[in-house]
Amino acid sequence: MRALFLDNEVRLRRDYPDPRPVSGESLIKVEMAGICGTDLELARGYMSYRGIPGHEFVGRVIESGRAEVIGRRVVGEINAACGRCEWCDRGLGRHCPNRTVLGILGRDGAFAEHLTLPDENLLPVPDSIPNESAVFCEPLAAAYEIFEQTHIQPTESIAILGDGRLGSLIAMALKAERLPSVIAGHNRSRLDRIAALGLKVSLESELKPGFDLVIDATGRAEGFNRALELVRPRGRVILKSTAAASAPLNPAPAVINEITIIGSRCGCFGPALEALASGRVDPRPLISGIYPLEDGIAAIRAATNRSNFKVLLRAA
Amino acid sequence: MRALFLDNEVRLRRDYPDPRPVSGESLIKVEMAGICGTDLELARGYMSYRGIPGHEFVGRVIESGRAEVIGRRVVGEINAACGRCEWCDRGLGRHCPNRTVLGILGRDGAFAEHLTLPDENLLPVPDSIPNESAVFCEPLAAAYEIFEQTHIQPTESIAILGDGRLGSLIAMALKAERLPSVIAGHNRSRLDRIAALGLKVSLESELKPGFDLVIDATGRAEGFNRALELVRPRGRVILKSTAAASAPLNPAPAVINEITIIGSRCGCFGPALEALASGRVDPRPLISGIYPLEDGIAAIRAATNRSNFKVLLRAA
Repeated sequence: MRALFLDNEVRLRRDYPDPRPVSGESLIKVEMAGICGTDLELARGYMSYRGIPGHEFVGRVIESGRAEVIGRRVVGEINAACGRCEWCDRGLGRHCPNRTVLGILGRDGAFAEHLTLPDENLLPVPDSIPNESAVFCEPLAAAYEIFEQTHIQPTESIAILGDGRLGSLIAMALKAERLPSVIAGHNRSRLDRIAALGLKVSLESELKPGFDLVIDATGRAEGFNRALELVRPRGRVILKSTAAASAPLNPAPAVINEITIIGSRCGCFGPALEALASGRVDPRPLISGIYPLEDGIAAIRAATNRSNFKVLLRAA
Repeated sequence: MRALFLDNEVRLRRDYPDPRPVSGESLIKVEMAGICGTDLELARGYMSYRGIPGHEFVGRVIESGRAEVIGRRVVGEINAACGRCEWCDRGLGRHCPNRTVLGILGRDGAFAEHLTLPDENLLPVPDSIPNESAVFCEPLAAAYEIFEQTHIQPTESIAILGDGRLGSLIAMALKAERLPSVIAGHNRSRLDRIAALGLKVSLESELKPGFDLVIDATGRAEGFNRALELVRPRGRVILKSTAAASAPLNPAPAVINEITIIGSRCGCFGPALEALASGRVDPRPLISGIYPLEDGIAAIRAATNRSNFKVLLRAA
């Protein structure tokens, strides 16, 4: 099959062996995949990953032990857990130490014609959700993860650092749950585009400290320090950035101001899928381009261009 | 009066003007003061502090608007709040943005013959607590602050990074509350001394990851990364280190493992004083030396010597 393959650099391969599902796994024909900041970090060495990247997808089940899903359009949770450890017993397979992670850790990903995932990871996509929305389910679930980790009062002031894909999706999720936030970035034209979606924006340099909650979605380790500058004493910081590179950081302000910092990664797909189905979140205005898999290298280049938001691959 | 004065370096001054209490403040004759890691960091430039350091003390009230405390032996909360802002209204004067902090921020400290503090900061010391214990009230309150911030189950595994003064006090406080922990350090002879106090110790390199709770009391920014390595997914890290220097850090593991990090600084004195009065915590074995104020420079030098634990100054 055709696939984008990362091994120091990303290359298009036309001869990559088709994945074979093992027992309990389904084979999925990828219809659409999204390029995420994490994919770009993987190419910079994050996780020392070698394989097919891509973990945001919508596809159709071709083979499965679960007959009822064959032919169905699905999205899939990306952590493939062992199902036998204490983490899995506690319903936290996303933290299973034996897990593989689609396109990130020990499991080929979605920038390909086909992929495999455990049957239990798959969620059927209602017909009302087009592929162009369903492909956002994984990052939107990461946004909804915040609600699983901390209760946010409607009166709290919220700043999102990072005017990129994830920051915008988080703001959309917050707005859908009637929690207003301000997205902060450095680039006026990006901010103008986000503002056109009905979201509140600010130049980062113009933010005043004192937020109850600051969400770091900058994708850079440096976002940590800036979040600590902007949050009020005894406030909360949600960390969403996973970058390959360390940065010179000083946690002392977190100690002095007794900040609670909450690391936040993947979320359950259910609430995200429901938000897409109900129309409370429509992420399609974030799409900057849709490329055929064949043009995957150009698509990745486009995703690294800061004037673009979400770049999608159409595999079918 | 005699005082140790920090202005790039610490010097003994014999001609320092006596502090004059303003309305609502008491004048206290310092009887004993403790040298803390923060004092050593101040001398390295932390907080850009210029003045008399020292925030751990026990003393006797000489002048006060509150007649009932005159002549009483007291300890004192170190944050002098404005009493008029929203933080003060919420009982969080320790985070008052207009606060001064004894020996740390805009207020001369305890390495002197006299100091002033707001009347409401003072707590009388029961006669059953000797000066050598009472002087530990401030750092012990910082240890007890942990219980104010997070609920710890008796079944949780707890590692304390840092075999110094604060790490030992935190382990004592945890033990007093029937929560066993292991103190980790790099120096076998220090660890042996701590073990002799009935506390569990380990070489840091021999700790296995997977702790429910990791408390960073290393006093160095690098403790942050190590804590993230040792805590289990979805576990908690308590940050206690306030260092002057940044370090190359990467918060990505906190995101991947969805760690909650809680910055923790000063605590209420009540629970600490009660633990000292009841004898549940006896910190006196941590004393490595008691120096007259006159020999304060030698005392600070002794406190920087890693073979020593708590070094005290006797002002009277």
